[in-house]
This record gives sequence, C-alpha cells and structure tokens, in this order.
Amino acid sequence: MTAPFLSAFDLTKPRTQNAPAVILFSGGLDSTTILALAKHLGYHCYALSVHYGQKHSSELEAAKQIAHLLGVERHEIIHLDLPRFGGSALTDHSLHIPTSNDQANLNTNRPVIPITYVPARNTIMLSLALAWAESISSLDIFYGANAVDYSGYPDCRPEYVRSFEVMANLATKAGVESLHPENGFRIHAPIIQMSKAQIIRLGAEMGINYSQTVSCYQANTNGEACGICESCQLRKTGFSQAGVSDPTRYQINI
Amino acid sequence: MTAPFLSAFDLTKPRTQNAPAVILFSGGLDSTTILALAKHLGYHCYALSVHYGQKHSSELEAAKQIAHLLGVERHEIIHLDLPRFGGSALTDHSLHIPTSNDQANLNTNRPVIPITYVPARNTIMLSLALAWAESISSLDIFYGANAVDYSGYPDCRPEYVRSFEVMANLATKAGVESLHPENGFRIHAPIIQMSKAQIIRLGAEMGINYSQTVSCYQANTNGEACGICESCQLRKTGFSQAGVSDPTRYQINI
Repeated sequence: MTAPFLSAFDLTKPRTQNAPAVILFSGGLDSTTILALAKHLGYHCYALSVHYGQKHSSELEAAKQIAHLLGVERHEIIHLDLPRFGGSALTDHSLHIPTSNDQANLNTNRPVIPITYVPARNTIMLSLALAWAESISSLDIFYGANAVDYSGYPDCRPEYVRSFEVMANLATKAGVESLHPENGFRIHAPIIQMSKAQIIRLGAEMGINYSQTVSCYQANTNGEACGICESCQLRKTGFSQAGVSDPTRYQINI
Repeated sequence: MTAPFLSAFDLTKPRTQNAPAVILFSGGLDSTTILALAKHLGYHCYALSVHYGQKHSSELEAAKQIAHLLGVERHEIIHLDLPRFGGSALTDHSLHIPTSNDQANLNTNRPVIPITYVPARNTIMLSLALAWAESISSLDIFYGANAVDYSGYPDCRPEYVRSFEVMANLATKAGVESLHPENGFRIHAPIIQMSKAQIIRLGAEMGINYSQTVSCYQANTNGEACGICESCQLRKTGFSQAGVSDPTRYQINI
C-alpha cells in the first residue's frame, strides 16, 4: 500500500530513538492527526491539552479517550482562566459564534482576524508545551496549526512558528547550554501547509478513526457536532474532498 | 532634585496619552520598580501576577497591597499548575532552595542554569501578558527581567526579550493588521542592564517604599524574608551598595 502523505515526513523523524515529544492536543481532527503522526514516526508522546475556558469543553473529553486509545506516555490537562481577559467568541459567552454564512473572511486576499481568534492563545499553549518539554528533556514539540483553512489566524502562519522556535531556543537551557543549533528545540508544524482533505487522507493512511474527534466550536456534552459552525463546515468539506466517508457524530435536532 | 536614573527612560514613554500597559508584577522589588516606572511615565497600568505554584506565595499578598497602593487600573492574578511539570526548586517541594553559600554560578564566566530556574516560566508569563494586552488593545508590556544579577537565567537576557517581541508581533492582530512595525508590540525591559543597587536608586528617585515588597524565595506567611537565600543576599547587597537603608522585614529566628 502506498502512503504518499505519510512518506513526506522523513525530516520530522526523531533525532534519537524513542525521543520524547510534547504534542499540543485538543482532541480535534488536526491535533489527533499530528499525535498519531508523532507516534508513527517513533516519538514517545506526551499529550498536552489546555482547558482555557472554551465553550466547547466536550473536546477535552474526546481528548482523554483518544490519548488513551493512541497509547501516549502521559496526558496532561492544564486549566487556565483566559475568559477573564475577554475578547473572543470562543471564550466570551456574550459573543456569538459565527457560522460559515456570516463569515466573510474566508475568500479575501487581505486576512481579517476572525472573532473566534483567542488573543495569544496558541502562544500560551506553545509556551506551556515548552515548559513541559524542557522538564522532561524533550526537544520536540508538535503543533497542529494550519495556515490553509484558517488563513485569518496570525498564529497559524509558518513565519510565526519559526519565530517561536527562535525565541524558544533563547528562552531555555537548550539555548544557553547547547553549542549546536541543531540540538535545540524544534517546533514541528507538520500539517501547516496541508488542506483539510490532505490532513484527512494522511490520517486515513495511518488508519485513524476520526469518529471520536471533536472539531465543532459548539459541540454538545456528548461530543456531537453542530454541523453549521465554521469549523464543522471546513471538516465536512474536507471529508468530501478527501473521498473519505464522514464519521462525525452530528446533533440530530439542529 | 536631579533624577539621573529616571531621566534615562524617555524612550520608554507612551506612544499615545494614557496608553494602557500590562506589567508583569510579582510583588518583588524589581517588578514593583517597573510598575512605578510605567505609572510615572504616564501609562494606564494593568498589573498581572501569576500564581504558578511557587513556594513563596506570600509575595502575591504583597502584590495585591502594592498594586492597590500604586493605583493600578486593574490587578489580575492568574493561577497555573506548573509544579505538575516539575524541574525547579521554586515549585518542587522535594528540591532544596539554595542559599548564596552553595550557589557556585554567580561568578563564573560561562553561565550555569540555577536550580531555581523554572522551565519556560517567563515565556508563559509574557504570553499571558500578551493575551491580556491584546484583549485591552495595549501594545506595551513591561517585564522586570534583569541580566546582571541573574546571569544564569536564559530568559532574562536582552536577546531573549527581543526574540519574544518579534514573535509577539507575528502572533497577534498587531502583526497582521499593522502596516507599520513601530505600531507593533513593545516588550519593555527597562531594568535588564541595571545592577540591583541602580534599580534601588531608580526606585528611590520615584519615592518607592520597598518595605512591602517580597523578593525572598522562602518568605513566611507574613511576608518576612529569610535573609539567606540567593534572592535575599542580592537584595541586601543592593541596598548596601545603593546607600539606601534596607527596609526589608526579616524573620527574627533564622
């Protein structure tokens, strides 16, 4: 069986056998794919989920189940009270989560920041991953950012990931004590340039069952998706374009 | 009255009148000085303290009092369970906090990371400050890092601060929507190149009463300092060299 997507990740392989890696893991489709990829490449996986006050906390329940199913070394959930800073539809209950019909930013040339952007959320989560990585002597962090479908998010761009990597190597013991830059931290963002359909086909090559993953911004407590938010629309289209049947569990009465 | 230290901060002045600034504020001597400085320069100050599981949580009580005394717009304390990652004497109760007698790294040429270093702590705290700053449309973050007395901490070096600033401007709305780099985030580290004595003299020029500030790694619940840890020794020497009488409240029976 050929695996064209999987075979493209040779450069992402561990520098040493069984090297530990920290994977930012929300329990959604993208981060489940990178967790499976890190494991497939031979890393010992430490999955980090962050409960930052998002409305869709059912994805964390999914994260627990999937981390167990994929056999990670450890799964940690860190709690952080981001809603007190305000400013995002994902954490502020007074703001409406947009559906794909009222988002005008998907096809413009100049990016507009979506209201679902949470200020500095990904930077905080990468910093927490960096803390854990340094504590367990890991130099590899996997980050499921995607610049294709979410082009409006500044912290999903490759240039952001590179700048975080530079900063991480100045912030830590690795930056002071390592004499060889190639021994420093690497922020792996393996799916950053892939379409949702390509990500799903990569997952299919690894045999991932996506039925447990939750991507919806407003899933119910059973982890069933709304089917209409921006995230659901992107996921639906992804399965369709990948030619893979969509196993997502949708709410019936919506 | 001349104020040679204070007059050196013209470049740190607000870009617009009453501009909001987020100040990383532990309640210690250094961060109290930068909070007073930001206020003196004309910023509307938002003080951010992080309770990251440090043993010396009495400094947070001091932080509340000082923030109130200095008249900040808002003071937030964010809780974060860093001890679960392990790896530092400041958060791990099984590790001994070194005194100045058993620290060998203060006078070496090649820096050695002290055991009191908390992996990625400052990066996490700056990321939280960035989240709050972006939420309140602030572009100014004040960070009390010091590269002179704590030369072993990688995240107290000027090159680290600059790399965080670059990353912050790629991570956020400011980085995507601003067409002028000078309109982006600035990470102010005004005391990074100053000795403890110089910091104390800057504070004296602003009339700061340091008796409420807590710098000790193992202060008791009344905020009284041990007098023997590395942080206490640096502070004592600082007051002595500044020619300012030391108002620190020390534990009597130590």
